[in-house]
Amino acid sequence: RTLRIGLIPGDGIGREVIPAGRRLLESLPSSLGLKFSFVDLDAGFDTFKRTGTALPDQTVEVLKKECDGALFGAVSSPSTKVAGYSSPIVALRKRLDLYANVRPVKTTAGGSATGSPIDLVIVRENTEDLYVKEEKTTEGPNGKVAEAIKRISERASFRIATMAGEIALRRQKIREVSPGTSHISKPMVTITHKSNVLSQTDGLFRETARQALANPKYSSVEVEEQIVDSMVYKLFRQPGYYDVVVAPNLYGDILSDGAAALVGSLGLVPSANVGDGFAIGEPCHGSAPDIEGKGIANPIATLRSVALMLEFLGEEPAAAKIYAAVDGNLDEGKLLSPDLGGNATTQEVLDDVLKRL
Amino acid sequence: RTLRIGLIPGDGIGREVIPAGRRLLESLPSSLGLKFSFVDLDAGFDTFKRTGTALPDQTVEVLKKECDGALFGAVSSPSTKVAGYSSPIVALRKRLDLYANVRPVKTTAGGSATGSPIDLVIVRENTEDLYVKEEKTTEGPNGKVAEAIKRISERASFRIATMAGEIALRRQKIREVSPGTSHISKPMVTITHKSNVLSQTDGLFRETARQALANPKYSSVEVEEQIVDSMVYKLFRQPGYYDVVVAPNLYGDILSDGAAALVGSLGLVPSANVGDGFAIGEPCHGSAPDIEGKGIANPIATLRSVALMLEFLGEEPAAAKIYAAVDGNLDEGKLLSPDLGGNATTQEVLDDVLKRL
Ligand SMILES: CC(C)[C@H](C(=O)O)[C@@H](O)C(=O)O
Ligand SMILES: CC(C)[C@H](C(=O)O)[C@@H](O)C(=O)O
Repeated sequence: RTLRIGLIPGDGIGREVIPAGRRLLESLPSSLGLKFSFVDLDAGFDTFKRTGTALPDQTVEVLKKECDGALFGAVSSPSTKVAGYSSPIVALRKRLDLYANVRPVKTTAGGSATGSPIDLVIVRENTEDLYVKEEKTTEGPNGKVAEAIKRISERASFRIATMAGEIALRRQKIREVSPGTSHISKPMVTITHKSNVLSQTDGLFRETARQALANPKYSSVEVEEQIVDSMVYKLFRQPGYYDVVVAPNLYGDILSDGAAALVGSLGLVPSANVGDGFAIGEPCHGSAPDIEGKGIANPIATLRSVALMLEFLGEEPAAAKIYAAVDGNLDEGKLLSPDLGGNATTQEVLDDVLKRL
Repeated sequence: RTLRIGLIPGDGIGREVIPAGRRLLESLPSSLGLKFSFVDLDAGFDTFKRTGTALPDQTVEVLKKECDGALFGAVSSPSTKVAGYSSPIVALRKRLDLYANVRPVKTTAGGSATGSPIDLVIVRENTEDLYVKEEKTTEGPNGKVAEAIKRISERASFRIATMAGEIALRRQKIREVSPGTSHISKPMVTITHKSNVLSQTDGLFRETARQALANPKYSSVEVEEQIVDSMVYKLFRQPGYYDVVVAPNLYGDILSDGAAALVGSLGLVPSANVGDGFAIGEPCHGSAPDIEGKGIANPIATLRSVALMLEFLGEEPAAAKIYAAVDGNLDEGKLLSPDLGGNATTQEVLDDVLKRL
């Protein structure tokens, strides 16, 4: 099977980690029976400055017509308001209907910032909530008043909760074939919301998620719920408690940064933007202007995002190989990038992972 | 001066900690020249079940007409949707225009869950954002679609940022008169927002806050900003970095639970809902049905909320006495409630604090 992969480095360290992701794909053992072809695509703030748009139509078209999946690096946000600029990754998620943002956060033997083992995945709705970006501003007697729409639909809530249920089952299956790789003992989905304040929107999310997960298919999955503020509290205090967390877009955004902090670095946390038959791997970190161009960005989040993309494209054996190689690097702990307290370069970390494939 | 204080225990452990707050006020040394009278007021889920409303008009009227301040305990949220029920504290904040929710989070010598000293205060806008609770649901071709309004006004953003600036200056003054009580060396306000997605609403918050803080009065205050997701990340990783954090309502809600987790227990974290000339002290924790009626709720959050209320009613010396007594209890660490790993009862912790006044 040959997979065509769009490469969208974006800005800053996106340009350093996406090439590492490509090298990883090119280096996969041929026994897996996978070939890759690549196409370089533009998006980001630099693209905006050059062309007036942060997400050229061309990029979307090529992804739709030619590609099986893609890797997205990071984009810088302008530090002051720039007329006409709008985040390309948010647009891409919507235009390709990549309705799930899947963010696994896992400690390896090396441990976590809190000391306790963590093995959770945040399944974030990726197309609606406040991210519909429908805003308006009016001028009133007391100055400006701006309003934004938070939209929650039954359809999007149902499909994201179903995805969470599927992921819970899949994780359980993986734990069964490789015992000892996780402290989690049974599948659980935690529904996150704030329906004590937002009874209609978050209420709809909560009820629809409960309905989706009431499907007998998921009868082995424990379903519970948590108000988003308490959830952040408990996530800090007892991160090992969670298995799969499903959340509306914005809470998912916030929770995944919180979870990333618990494992020591955003540089470790991958994500996949997943739609029907398409996936974009994307490290959770940003464009990191402070270390841009120094060759010291941690490539792990991207390498894991490559695996996650492959997983959602049905290539689980390839994904498993990558996860194992990355875990090998981290567990040995000899070649770590500066964010993890080491002094290895992006290239050295990559080479170490490739050698373990 | 005699202050009349409304007592609104609410549900669950609210009924155990608010009496402790009253005892504290009654026990303040007479040298402070303060007298108190009290009025018991209803609100909460039990009130709702009894009367059909969670916040009787009577409660609001008495607060408005008779009281100088109040103490609010906690309310339970129904675990499934209950028609007509709506959170009384959210309504109270709006009806009394208590526009600021001030939540100091501070470690004592006893230390924090992360080991590093923390001395920050979250200044949360308390009247708008998604808490305007303007929601509607429509039935579309793909099922229900619910929408909520997130409203951000220039007026509310300006006054909350001004409050943050004032608090930053006041904290600096306190550090000057009592050196060695904080690791913070200079005043700073961090503006939290998500204007990379919500350019109009959060953009307005950000710009208005910057304007308010550009007042020469605050020239000694460093002003910086952080996107809410990165903020949660950094709050976990480097909590000692923050001094004053100003945030729209919902982010403030989430961030304060995160910060509370860092100091070890929600049972330690107070808040004050502050308007012009009125303040309601409110522990950050909830009604805790799991420990209700056992007499082991941690009263510290309430005792500190009493102090915070007094601070905003202009009674700083009384507040300082309470803070010192509470810190004394925590630093000695002999009489701690179970949430802090001890086995003292609510009463024992209270008595220990009173004895230190
Ligand atoms: C850059 C930003 C628009 C984006 C988001 O909010 O989704 C980022 O924080 C993320 O989590 O991918
Ligand atoms: C109970 C709930 C409505 C409330 C809020 O969201 O403000 C609580 O979480 C708080 O922080 O005081």
